[in-house]
Amino acid sequence: MSGETLHVHFLGTAGAIPTTMRTLSCIMVRRGADTLLFDCGEGAQQQMMRARTGFTVDAIFITHWHADHFLGVIGLVQTLSFIGRDLPLRIFGPAGVEEFVSEMKRICRNNIRFPIRSGRISDGDQVRFDGYTVTAFAVDHGTPALGYVLCEDDRPGRFNRETAIALGVPPGPLFGRLQRGEEVTVQKNGSPTVIRPDDVMGARRPGRKVVYTGDTRPVGSLPPELVSDADLFVHDATFDESERQKATEFAHSTARDAGISATRYKARKLALFHISSRYTKTDAHLSDARQCFSGEIIAPDDLTLVEIGFRDE
Amino acid sequence: MSGETLHVHFLGTAGAIPTTMRTLSCIMVRRGADTLLFDCGEGAQQQMMRARTGFTVDAIFITHWHADHFLGVIGLVQTLSFIGRDLPLRIFGPAGVEEFVSEMKRICRNNIRFPIRSGRISDGDQVRFDGYTVTAFAVDHGTPALGYVLCEDDRPGRFNRETAIALGVPPGPLFGRLQRGEEVTVQKNGSPTVIRPDDVMGARRPGRKVVYTGDTRPVGSLPPELVSDADLFVHDATFDESERQKATEFAHSTARDAGISATRYKARKLALFHISSRYTKTDAHLSDARQCFSGEIIAPDDLTLVEIGFRDE
Repeated sequence: MSGETLHVHFLGTAGAIPTTMRTLSCIMVRRGADTLLFDCGEGAQQQMMRARTGFTVDAIFITHWHADHFLGVIGLVQTLSFIGRDLPLRIFGPAGVEEFVSEMKRICRNNIRFPIRSGRISDGDQVRFDGYTVTAFAVDHGTPALGYVLCEDDRPGRFNRETAIALGVPPGPLFGRLQRGEEVTVQKNGSPTVIRPDDVMGARRPGRKVVYTGDTRPVGSLPPELVSDADLFVHDATFDESERQKATEFAHSTARDAGISATRYKARKLALFHISSRYTKTDAHLSDARQCFSGEIIAPDDLTLVEIGFRDE
Repeated sequence: MSGETLHVHFLGTAGAIPTTMRTLSCIMVRRGADTLLFDCGEGAQQQMMRARTGFTVDAIFITHWHADHFLGVIGLVQTLSFIGRDLPLRIFGPAGVEEFVSEMKRICRNNIRFPIRSGRISDGDQVRFDGYTVTAFAVDHGTPALGYVLCEDDRPGRFNRETAIALGVPPGPLFGRLQRGEEVTVQKNGSPTVIRPDDVMGARRPGRKVVYTGDTRPVGSLPPELVSDADLFVHDATFDESERQKATEFAHSTARDAGISATRYKARKLALFHISSRYTKTDAHLSDARQCFSGEIIAPDDLTLVEIGFRDE
């Protein structure tokens, strides 16, 4: 499954208050047939329609219990129920997720017709999917808050066809067995010889990685092995540098902070996220971040789609 | 205060599920400096921004507790709190309104920083405002559900200047006193004579009236004196005639039903509302309604503004 598509839809990119152009926080990650939401602010279901993503959500990860990050779950769940979903939906989040799910059911008059399973997670907890893992990490937002890393499993190394033939493996089914990690036995100079995958496969290649900090002061003490080398690093950038004081006061980050974190954790691409409603442009955010990070920087608008390819392809 | 503006903003016009073009039910009525919301589906606060109405909501009237009609209250209240509102907000609705307000406070982690007062109302109950009244009427939607009538107080009749002068009232302050309903005394042929307002004022003129049925089967047994002669009659028109079966099954109305009701209650203008997400056009709705109603018919899009003038001006 190493060839799955990995698409990140920025469905909502606003700060605490929406604007006419920015809906509240919601990031959809689609990997192959899986669909995950990271935060789900008010209006998410309508943004899913505008992005034409469909509604097949497998799991929702909430970063924290400020309303701009989760109210959209309720309307989405209503619509899923209305259109006949019967598959369970998993909702993960920090302490409070069970209460949220209970409150949602009450507020919907208990008319949700499919199972909703809450999963309380905390720093370091992992949720396993087919081919990748979502890991939570604690952030600093003045309330229990998590960021999330979606990290794919390593992929096998490249198969060296020429080496295999030189070792006496004939092109055909044995190639596939070696690629799947099995030993094979071939006749070489008249005697059986075992060929191991390591003989014909290059070093394993890391999977792709997306980091989403959620709302937070600048992250600086995260486990490097967890968050480093992200293909996409989505960091709170609520303010530009002119509002540094507000960033500190409200436990958010500036775009400059995001740039510093992206450099520290060797990100490949930085996305400036959770833009305050006071800004109609992100020029200052981008230039502030640029001063501290030399990789690619984007300030996604609503409905921006980032397709993440493999580094070695 | 008989000269107040009366504006009806159709902020959200969708049926139970939003579309890329229609947000969930929300009608803002602004009369002079007052702002009322009738229903407040998810996304209402963003629609208020798009309509540039501001956020000075005085009261919210919910028709019933299906989520597409009230979820937007929560995000709106969050934003009002965030931007520093301290005035109380009144939320009216049928049985369940107290529970909704409690659930909203819990789901917002009790961080709403202004008072919210719930008002449970039922068929026939009136809420009095300065210069007008909102009256609830029961409708048939398979769940406790209300419609609302906003009806202005009668306005004084026209002042007949010529008659006043002929009766010996000199132009000046006495005109104003008569217009405000006071008797005045003038010297006529050397003797004091009392002039009463009725002597110089025409018949009182009815105020303007807006009727909103909310979700309902066709209304047919409402008190005529309450709902008749509306300047704007907003009726459930979820389906066109091709889906009559669904309208019956789900306790909604067709556009034809709305036209029949508008004729029965002598409406001046009919607005077809709560359009199902299956329709991208409303041509069929409009022609269905036209067969049964000869007044003006509209099928408002999101952000349609209807300005209601006085009939006699």
